[in-house]
Amino acid sequence: MKPKNAFYAQSGGVTAVINASAAGVIETARKQRRHIGRVFAGRDGIIGALTEDLIDTSKEPASAIARLKTTPGGAFGSCRYKLKGIEENHAQFERMIEVFRAHDIGYFFYNGGNDSADTAWKVSQVGEKLGYPLICVGIPKTVDNDLAITDNCPGFGSVAKYVATSIREAGFDVASMAKTSTRIFVMEVMGRHAGWITAACGLAADEEGDAPQILLFPEIQFDEEKFLARVRQVVERDGWCAVAVSEGLRNKDGELMSESGLKDAFGHSQLGGAGQIVAKLIKDRLGYKYHWALADYLQRAARHIASKVDVEQSYKLGVAAVKLAIAGRNAVMPVIERLSNKPYRWRIGVAKLADVANREKMMPRDFITADGFHITPKCRIYLSPLIQGEAPPPYKNGLPDYVKLKNEPVPKKLPAFKV
Amino acid sequence: MKPKNAFYAQSGGVTAVINASAAGVIETARKQRRHIGRVFAGRDGIIGALTEDLIDTSKEPASAIARLKTTPGGAFGSCRYKLKGIEENHAQFERMIEVFRAHDIGYFFYNGGNDSADTAWKVSQVGEKLGYPLICVGIPKTVDNDLAITDNCPGFGSVAKYVATSIREAGFDVASMAKTSTRIFVMEVMGRHAGWITAACGLAADEEGDAPQILLFPEIQFDEEKFLARVRQVVERDGWCAVAVSEGLRNKDGELMSESGLKDAFGHSQLGGAGQIVAKLIKDRLGYKYHWALADYLQRAARHIASKVDVEQSYKLGVAAVKLAIAGRNAVMPVIERLSNKPYRWRIGVAKLADVANREKMMPRDFITADGFHITPKCRIYLSPLIQGEAPPPYKNGLPDYVKLKNEPVPKKLPAFKV
Repeated sequence: MKPKNAFYAQSGGVTAVINASAAGVIETARKQRRHIGRVFAGRDGIIGALTEDLIDTSKEPASAIARLKTTPGGAFGSCRYKLKGIEENHAQFERMIEVFRAHDIGYFFYNGGNDSADTAWKVSQVGEKLGYPLICVGIPKTVDNDLAITDNCPGFGSVAKYVATSIREAGFDVASMAKTSTRIFVMEVMGRHAGWITAACGLAADEEGDAPQILLFPEIQFDEEKFLARVRQVVERDGWCAVAVSEGLRNKDGELMSESGLKDAFGHSQLGGAGQIVAKLIKDRLGYKYHWALADYLQRAARHIASKVDVEQSYKLGVAAVKLAIAGRNAVMPVIERLSNKPYRWRIGVAKLADVANREKMMPRDFITADGFHITPKCRIYLSPLIQGEAPPPYKNGLPDYVKLKNEPVPKKLPAFKV
Repeated sequence: MKPKNAFYAQSGGVTAVINASAAGVIETARKQRRHIGRVFAGRDGIIGALTEDLIDTSKEPASAIARLKTTPGGAFGSCRYKLKGIEENHAQFERMIEVFRAHDIGYFFYNGGNDSADTAWKVSQVGEKLGYPLICVGIPKTVDNDLAITDNCPGFGSVAKYVATSIREAGFDVASMAKTSTRIFVMEVMGRHAGWITAACGLAADEEGDAPQILLFPEIQFDEEKFLARVRQVVERDGWCAVAVSEGLRNKDGELMSESGLKDAFGHSQLGGAGQIVAKLIKDRLGYKYHWALADYLQRAARHIASKVDVEQSYKLGVAAVKLAIAGRNAVMPVIERLSNKPYRWRIGVAKLADVANREKMMPRDFITADGFHITPKCRIYLSPLIQGEAPPPYKNGLPDYVKLKNEPVPKKLPAFKV
């Protein structure tokens, strides 16, 4: 019997290492030709499955697939698109099955975060509910590190390494300038709900007086007076202060600072990101000169300073997903299980998609110090292994040499379909 | 005769590699004990010379000095402080001489940019005008790359490598997201007057369709309609668009965008950095979803991705400064002379401080394309050698391991002096 083809798609915000998972899937599938025919990637994620816009990865040489391990972004395109359930959304599922049938697809790999685990879980039911035999396996990915069950999420370790490195470096800079110029450095980082990335900044502070002296978590409501008192105290002690701020910082009423803003002297709302608002507040109230940075996509795309642990885990989760699929395991997701902290040891485990979908793993309160402004030793023990090791990309002409795939389309067999 | 001591100070905005110049000075001086006694560093730059706040670098082991080559920021503290001329400012110069005499200082090394070359030039006159024998040598440093005479400025190559890498990486990210989400990525970079750093972003674009598709230089007045038409054209061609914006972008009236801002729907001024303003403008006028990043200090502190060429040049300029001083050359500055582009060859030359002081090297107009939105091949030929090679710092626990010196003070001999 001719082996079934596989469909692989990237979903949601991309990372510095999601392509390493893609490489794990494709390289492993290529070694399993008895079980898996070709791997078709969805162009722009699940949308490619609906529009029959499939990329034939078998047209890429092994060397190009290997280079995915060192290339950030989503090589086949990603999307923000949440499928409704089969009952509410019959037409789309029927269409997807039509596409899968036309291209002889028997495996479905979905590489994403919370919403994507939910989508994958819905797709995993098409066998039972719609009679189309499909093995559906999720592959975790999210810089937010907020997926349930898995010890940590691919993509997070590299962001963590980037933000901790960046604020350490900026700390050395502002410390040099503090005597006559800038005393405050504020860096805003991602994490709308969970403070994992903010916490990672804290890894840069090995001892008192190191940057960042203050962290502002989305989990801790912003107390202006308490914060300003702390800033003043740090500046009096160290001469300067570096603050890492979550984009999801909330005020006392639980509203996002970035949406509620502050009032200026004329009572006008001053909108802006949380970092910008906090920096201006320090200037207005304490008079210290500030600089501020917004890392934005730079943090999640920074493949040049990816964590080696993160790259390895991302790759091996891709490998494991294919092995699970071949073993006939439907509706599951390979996850990271931590075996020990020191030395750090981990292995791949398996979770049910139903248990991962739509759950959010928040920072435990005991990972944040009692005053709410830093991480605890317990948090450091958790985070530290995830940023270990360097895995630099190849360089060409002084810049990282990232691969652009040919992304050749699979010839269409069906009439068009509007998403 | 006992050899004279040396004074070394860092000045102005610091860089990822100014400490490499410090290492060049200190290591070379240590090999020249017949000529130079100890190297005293000014705490917080020239202010340390006035307040008699000197750091005894001889207390640092050779291993710590060597690690300066891989540590960003200014290890002894820098300052923004411009000395007036000897005539207008007699008391300060007299005080400085008093401090130098008390500590037997016969060499003065000043590591900085335009203003610092001016300060160094003034100090170089104390022998002639005030009768105190002093050899004064400047050492170039500025991320702005705007010093006269030298082919390029230490610190710039590393910023260039960082910003080009960052916008390349962000380009891979936004390209992945463009189908259903973000289509525009804007990154604001440093360079208030000269567009060298903005130009460096352009190195990431090897071919049409690569990030950044558009550069906004401080040299080219911002034409809103022409810019929006170009953004639309790029999005229609590539599906997305990455824009690098200079913080010094100016509107048609020649005013800084960051100061003049734009009006919102209610006629209120919307302040913000140039990058933020440009990003919002695209959203308001074209409706494209955007992300924007403000690299700020991250760009000039990013020692983790420093240019090897830049590190080497910075170090060797420090070495050369000491050799010039020992040769008795007063009022000079070692500079970079380019010998060939391909292969890139360079050597150290010598400039007079008087010729460097207070001059600004702008981007030649023929380094910018006729439409004002990108760099020319001629510009690439100039810039490309400056970002070549990687010189990563050592890592410890997953993060760059930067040195913090002891910075032991030289015992004071004089009464206090208020700066």
